[in-house]
Amino acid sequence: MKMNEFFIDVRVYIEDTDAGGIVYYANYLKFLERARTEFMRFLGINKPALMQDAQLVVVDLNLRYLSPALLDDSLKVTVNLKELKRASFWIEQRVFRDNDILIDGKVRLAALENKSKKLIALPKKVKSCLEKIEIIKE
Amino acid sequence: MKMNEFFIDVRVYIEDTDAGGIVYYANYLKFLERARTEFMRFLGINKPALMQDAQLVVVDLNLRYLSPALLDDSLKVTVNLKELKRASFWIEQRVFRDNDILIDGKVRLAALENKSKKLIALPKKVKSCLEKIEIIKE
Amino acid sequence: MKMNEFFIDVRVYIEDTDAGGIVYYANYLKFLERARTEFMRFLGINKPALMQDAQLVVVDLNLRYLSPALLDDSLKVTVNLKELKRASFWIEQRVFRDNDILIDGKVRLAALENKSKKLIALPKKVKSCLEKIEIIKE
Amino acid sequence: MKMNEFFIDVRVYIEDTDAGGIVYYANYLKFLERARTEFMRFLGINKPALMQDAQLVVVDLNLRYLSPALLDDSLKVTVNLKELKRASFWIEQRVFRDNDILIDGKVRLAALENKSKKLIALPKKVKSCLEKIEIIKE
Repeated sequence: MKMNEFFIDVRVYIEDTDAGGIVYYANYLKFLERARTEFMRFLGINKPALMQDAQLVVVDLNLRYLSPALLDDSLKVTVNLKELKRASFWIEQRVFRDNDILIDGKVRLAALENKSKKLIALPKKVKSCLEKIEIIKE
Repeated sequence: MKMNEFFIDVRVYIEDTDAGGIVYYANYLKFLERARTEFMRFLGINKPALMQDAQLVVVDLNLRYLSPALLDDSLKVTVNLKELKRASFWIEQRVFRDNDILIDGKVRLAALENKSKKLIALPKKVKSCLEKIEIIKE
Repeated sequence: MKMNEFFIDVRVYIEDTDAGGIVYYANYLKFLERARTEFMRFLGINKPALMQDAQLVVVDLNLRYLSPALLDDSLKVTVNLKELKRASFWIEQRVFRDNDILIDGKVRLAALENKSKKLIALPKKVKSCLEKIEIIKE
Repeated sequence: MKMNEFFIDVRVYIEDTDAGGIVYYANYLKFLERARTEFMRFLGINKPALMQDAQLVVVDLNLRYLSPALLDDSLKVTVNLKELKRASFWIEQRVFRDNDILIDGKVRLAALENKSKKLIALPKKVKSCLEKIEIIKE
């Protein structure tokens, strides 16, 4: 399965902006998570079911903010699996407005056990779903 | 001036948490910005004045999420200037709960011109304030 | 024009929830505003254009929280114009999950002049668009 | 015990504002909740302990937005218990900047059982703490 083209559309509402007239820098992380959630849903993993015992959490976040998004912009947010390991996986995420790239990022996710609040190996269900994806090396 | 010990205290309220029972990953960025705002205020730069022509924006963000913060936690958020250049500066930011480090990050800031929405050199006022700080090499 | 059936669909993401496992009470206001924004767009008023000189702001908010929304819920958010006056208008807004009503609200909006930060009469463009709507009395 | 003067101070950060240059209307609800949380803490009820079996939730919200708060404003947020019943209580909350009242509100809270997500009678601990407060009739 080739999944290197997964994306969602996001509209920028006033809730996303700040007094600088641009999208507040923390709010892009919401857009990125919405895209990851829909990506996981597409793979057959819905969030509430996943969160019974452990939840996927971001453990590393590297973002470059290249150009600001503005009120009412229509954005495209992409998800690309780049590396899958036993206890975590890296995905690449970008935010576009038309052909302009606004955010270029890499995010690493891992599984946090609800009770202990410690990291554990990825749940089997997550791992087996992600293993179906063909990782494209650049 | 040695400034390698600047920090603010942050209380975690329910607004900061998510259904996973932990602080939502985007909300740490609010804590980091509050600390930077108070750091700049301490240096004599208040945000509304600064934002007349250009605003400081985050252009690079590298965060490691080491352990989750929980509802009602009392956190300490630090700010350390690490490198000052013509058009940007790097600061190191950490979030602590007692002696545990929860977030370890580096953030690069630059000046975005309000009208053009393009990056410009750092405003003189910002640069001269930051130049007073002795950067501690590790 | 009958407009008493305008609504948008909203998906609940983890960003919307809190540690109580429900949608955080402030976040419904974002859903309500998204619906109002799309309602205005449908009427031909896009937000950035509207905000040149004055912006529509909420001046009265009356909400009853009847039942909580949960992570991953698919919600319907409605907008019904109920009363149009010279300087403000009332709209009724509801949030549904299937046939259950979760939020029942009334919101009054007025125009805030950007420079003075004072309320002024509704902009002509807004008034004339809203006047086209047939208000349904119950 | 007279408690009709309980308040907290809140600083407006960029996270609280929107592209209209004012505090986003949903974000005042965060300020109101912070004040209620500190009020409850002052009465001896801390939020995580309270939330074991049931949580206090807002069931009615009536706010008048009288004047907008701006970036960097220093606000005072008040809490006044107005009525205590078996299954809910009303509090009055106001937001001030110096002597100007920006928000005038009334909020009704009730207890939501975590498992059933249904409203129940107020927990004894909450009720007995609130009963100590002398309610001032105007």
